Amino acid sequence: MSTFIENQNWRYATKKFDATKKISDENIALLKKAIQSAASSYGLQPYKVFFIENPEVRAQLQPAAWGQSQIVDASHLIVFASINKLNEAYIDAFVQNMATTRNLQVADLEGYATFMKGAILNMPEDKMATWTAKQTYIALGNLLAAAAELKIDVTPMEGFEPEKFNEILGFNERGLHATLVAPIGYRHAEDALQFAAKVRKSEEELFETI
Amino acid sequence: MSTFIENQNWRYATKKFDATKKISDENIALLKKAIQSAASSYGLQPYKVFFIENPEVRAQLQPAAWGQSQIVDASHLIVFASINKLNEAYIDAFVQNMATTRNLQVADLEGYATFMKGAILNMPEDKMATWTAKQTYIALGNLLAAAAELKIDVTPMEGFEPEKFNEILGFNERGLHATLVAPIGYRHAEDALQFAAKVRKSEEELFETI
Repeated sequence: MSTFIENQNWRYATKKFDATKKISDENIALLKKAIQSAASSYGLQPYKVFFIENPEVRAQLQPAAWGQSQIVDASHLIVFASINKLNEAYIDAFVQNMATTRNLQVADLEGYATFMKGAILNMPEDKMATWTAKQTYIALGNLLAAAAELKIDVTPMEGFEPEKFNEILGFNERGLHATLVAPIGYRHAEDALQFAAKVRKSEEELFETI
Repeated sequence: MSTFIENQNWRYATKKFDATKKISDENIALLKKAIQSAASSYGLQPYKVFFIENPEVRAQLQPAAWGQSQIVDASHLIVFASINKLNEAYIDAFVQNMATTRNLQVADLEGYATFMKGAILNMPEDKMATWTAKQTYIALGNLLAAAAELKIDVTPMEGFEPEKFNEILGFNERGLHATLVAPIGYRHAEDALQFAAKVRKSEEELFETI
């Protein structure tokens, strides 16, 4: 377990990636599994996760992320996109998946389905979009922890223009919204920030016991 | 690394805790370190994390979480509370911490401080509160990953009434908002859900390459 903390101390938001170093297919598969296994509200995973490999698309995205070099220099570029509005069909598909996975009848899950629909489908649109967006932050958390274990660098980013990302990546017509960007790869030897101490609130400031 | 995935598969949102099993002080210390090391926007950690040990307070909170048994049966109860509104003093304190931690002069960080203040202090209040709330989801992600490594169970919860939690825990007068609740402890042998297969979107459905 001290490994977890050591990995966290090793991790930092990389400013400059080594563009010559690529993540292996095997490690990409592991990172995908880590994202896929993340917790989410009701287990609904109300998002999609995009791996942007096309260099032209990445070049197009760079100015929409304040020109940050990581967008084009990282080995891979991940964009988390939340689903703005879940509908009845979405929840039905989830229940069907649950029935198949757990070898149950959909009819056995009817009560649960009705409960979820009552809780979710009447949410105001902006509240629902915020709620689905929040779920992507847990998935990002899993990506960060898994990547640190593999000594793969990640730069979690909110510093980009979501509207431009949505437009470039065709998210608007699909009801998706870019919530988080995560270039992944290997830190450049010249990125001085890797040697800087982590800045964190003290335990006394962060935690409180009641 | 396959351990990370194995731990994720072991993990589930525990429905019933074994109220007789307590997490050791040593493991609580490790979980705190995991939360403390979580990434956040600018590294600002715009939240506080409460460990609710007082059984009377936990009993008071239970009806505000739909009566869920985990609130009182888990070994410990964690409540994440985001800071509704960051002000200039908050950012100054962060910059001071950065200067101390990295052995720099505050004056050297003036440009960065000004940049952050410009980006943050003019945010509309509701947008800022949503943004700080989102950061707690990354910290929850770290808690989930670390706990799974320690074979400690967690039930991440959005299913509670934040306004009632805010009132009971005195958050309103401190500008805090309860965003996530996480009872932690050890699963009860009788919780059948621990044997159910994990329901997840297929990789084909979740991921897309551009």
